[in-house]
Amino acid sequence: MKIARVLTKEGIKYCNYMGETYYLIDGDIYGQYTVTDRVVEIDKLLVPVQPSKIICIGVNYAEHAKEMGRELRQVPAVFIKPSTCLLEHNGNIVYPSIATLVHYEGELAIVMGRKAHKVSADRALEYVLGYTCANDVTERKIQRSDFQWTRGKGFDTFCPVGPYIATDVDSSNLSISTYVNDVAVQAGNTADLIYNVPDLIEFISQWTTLLPGDIILTGTPAGVGELRVGDKVEVKIEQIGSLINTVVQDIE
Amino acid sequence: MKIARVLTKEGIKYCNYMGETYYLIDGDIYGQYTVTDRVVEIDKLLVPVQPSKIICIGVNYAEHAKEMGRELRQVPAVFIKPSTCLLEHNGNIVYPSIATLVHYEGELAIVMGRKAHKVSADRALEYVLGYTCANDVTERKIQRSDFQWTRGKGFDTFCPVGPYIATDVDSSNLSISTYVNDVAVQAGNTADLIYNVPDLIEFISQWTTLLPGDIILTGTPAGVGELRVGDKVEVKIEQIGSLINTVVQDIE
Repeated sequence: MKIARVLTKEGIKYCNYMGETYYLIDGDIYGQYTVTDRVVEIDKLLVPVQPSKIICIGVNYAEHAKEMGRELRQVPAVFIKPSTCLLEHNGNIVYPSIATLVHYEGELAIVMGRKAHKVSADRALEYVLGYTCANDVTERKIQRSDFQWTRGKGFDTFCPVGPYIATDVDSSNLSISTYVNDVAVQAGNTADLIYNVPDLIEFISQWTTLLPGDIILTGTPAGVGELRVGDKVEVKIEQIGSLINTVVQDIE
Repeated sequence: MKIARVLTKEGIKYCNYMGETYYLIDGDIYGQYTVTDRVVEIDKLLVPVQPSKIICIGVNYAEHAKEMGRELRQVPAVFIKPSTCLLEHNGNIVYPSIATLVHYEGELAIVMGRKAHKVSADRALEYVLGYTCANDVTERKIQRSDFQWTRGKGFDTFCPVGPYIATDVDSSNLSISTYVNDVAVQAGNTADLIYNVPDLIEFISQWTTLLPGDIILTGTPAGVGELRVGDKVEVKIEQIGSLINTVVQDIE
């Protein structure tokens, strides 16, 4: 199933997206729900999740670690993006007026379905609702010059997520690619994650309780590079979908 | 006014705490509200805010920077704690089973009252609802060994906040002290903040939109040190109040 969160004339709804049609979901996608046969006319696709936290993993593909000149450590690199970073499929990434070097980072995002506290890797997948595409947009110079990565990765609109939550997906071997203006710039596979999905859920849930709807960005493969105003960027993951955004000038 | 968020037999309410009595607030504390003369019987004090993000500032008192061996940089050090860190006044800080060195950090917290996007320092105070006490509890060894500070500062219960939001307070010259088992361990003054409250709101709102209820932990003065299981820790700020918590063993 592909779960979409959509704006309609009757407010915000969840739908099952199937064969170009949106079917209304009745109930709570994190609890009890029914997929109905009622077709929904949508005004706009929204970010499919409303996370209480966006946990991000850095340096989780060996080839990307090499291109960034980062040594690998005993544990994953973890940071948090604020929810004000979230941007829907087809939304505009705002190039900040203080930015000089903005990078895309295509990533697989895990969507948690249940509260997870100290979950072991072998039970971790029971806590997952599904997966979606994400772009960990980064101001690289600020990321490097600040004490912490928070600001360089925390600008408004710097976390496109979507378009759908794909359930019933095996995340262990999915091709993941990024395109800038339809040119392939990243091509990886989740089989090359240093810490895979169950490992990450085990690691993270040891110190912070993951809540339904929380998302984990699993890190980007090699091939990061620049985004400029006017660029179209697409993160495409096998069996999940394509997340497309355009970069616009900050006019405020 | 001191705004409390409380659990009552009729659900969660906001109150004005005055002379040991809680008076019901009708309406939205971030919008239109009225303080009534109805006295509320409370079951429990809750964390006074429900932030969409907890922005934290590190290395913001020169004496603390010196004790940590940190150089000062051009911009404040920023990190984010997840909302699952929040802990109410009188709640228990859980000493994680994987922890070996847990530190207190007493801090002034700013509570945002209005949405703030690219606000200048001279207008910043118009966006503040009030102030409260916070404890930026930190696993120091993990903070130092990880790539980022997120995990060391992000454990569940590692962000006690409260007991009240004090409005109508001038934050530019407030004494701030921390006590462990009633012994004074930190004694600072917000007049010594390297980046003061208006500076911080200007700096942060340039890159992330601050929402009503978002909080900013402004950094800790010198004198950080260890907390052990059984310790009582108190963060006391002039005109605001005393935030008291006890450290307990992780028994899960």
